[in-house]
Amino acid sequence: MNYMVIQNKRTFIIVGHKATTSPNFSLEDIPGTSGRLDILCRAVTAAFVLSHGIRKDVCVYLVLLGGEIPKTIQLRGETLRHLNPDERTTAALLKKALAVPAAPQWALSTSGIFVRSGGLVELLADLKDARMIYLREDGADIRTLDAGGHCCETAFILGDHTGMTPDEESLIEHAGAKVVSLGPTSLHADHCVVLINWLLDTNVFMPE
Amino acid sequence: MNYMVIQNKRTFIIVGHKATTSPNFSLEDIPGTSGRLDILCRAVTAAFVLSHGIRKDVCVYLVLLGGEIPKTIQLRGETLRHLNPDERTTAALLKKALAVPAAPQWALSTSGIFVRSGGLVELLADLKDARMIYLREDGADIRTLDAGGHCCETAFILGDHTGMTPDEESLIEHAGAKVVSLGPTSLHADHCVVLINWLLDTNVFMPE
Repeated sequence: MNYMVIQNKRTFIIVGHKATTSPNFSLEDIPGTSGRLDILCRAVTAAFVLSHGIRKDVCVYLVLLGGEIPKTIQLRGETLRHLNPDERTTAALLKKALAVPAAPQWALSTSGIFVRSGGLVELLADLKDARMIYLREDGADIRTLDAGGHCCETAFILGDHTGMTPDEESLIEHAGAKVVSLGPTSLHADHCVVLINWLLDTNVFMPE
Repeated sequence: MNYMVIQNKRTFIIVGHKATTSPNFSLEDIPGTSGRLDILCRAVTAAFVLSHGIRKDVCVYLVLLGGEIPKTIQLRGETLRHLNPDERTTAALLKKALAVPAAPQWALSTSGIFVRSGGLVELLADLKDARMIYLREDGADIRTLDAGGHCCETAFILGDHTGMTPDEESLIEHAGAKVVSLGPTSLHADHCVVLINWLLDTNVFMPE
């Protein structure tokens, strides 16, 4: 199957540098057996779950670099099913997705979850028409971002606990990403996602 | 042992209406066996974990009402140990605390974690000198809060997925709590905690 990459209102890209591309990790010890897939699980729930529902206008890409070849998992709010707020349920959904044979085209796992081979290079090429925002502590204050007419085509790029490599930094820069910051305190990826959702919800982005 | 309740810079009170007061829940199915203790676990990590460390200036009280008698667990950032960002590790720490016999005085579990019998009535009495802020969707915009000289004595009260009962609302009102809101979107308690920490970090509270 091949699914077009359609721009959602809110797109989050989270890069897991050690995150496993294999389903052979233990749900009893996610941090210790999956290359910190727990970080990505929490980013997924932060992106989607509301107190009573799922954000339909969100799309998340998890770039998993802890295998022989990279894989990317895509989660789309408008059709996403079976996502609960707890970490283990999310990990179980990702486990299922990683059991699907990954080719360069998107393949469906469970409802709203797709997987393919390929990493950041391929994803940034797909999203070349989107406005890219890269979160890094030394960036410009996120509250100075222009939310204007671009908001339907914005993708936020976040790293995991290891930060981006120089090659990735270069790729992201080449993609024209604007570097913005949520402040001097270094936060976990899921907390950054919570904050971005809220900033978008409450329209505090100001004109540049 | 008896520990004085010392006001921290940031205090969060999270009420778990169905949350178990027994250690006999399964770490393999936290949401299904613990009365949604998973909600409180995520609130704890949201309150404390930074990308590279623990917030020392935070204190969290978990009010557990899903047993025969209520219990309260206190977590204090300045001495808290063994807290990892994942949900299961936090649940394991709470499990240990719930295995400690609970009396009306605080008893130490693992470093930085204390437990006692008693619920919201006792806690609000202990914190009677603090400025109380109660988070509810229909409250005043949180960004209009005066962060001024009171910030060392502010306690934020949050509910779980079931909301507060009329009796609890009345107790909280009687404690002089100001009702504030993070916006019209109903968010999970842990997401609210992330936002409050960030608002305090970035000093966006404005004078009233």
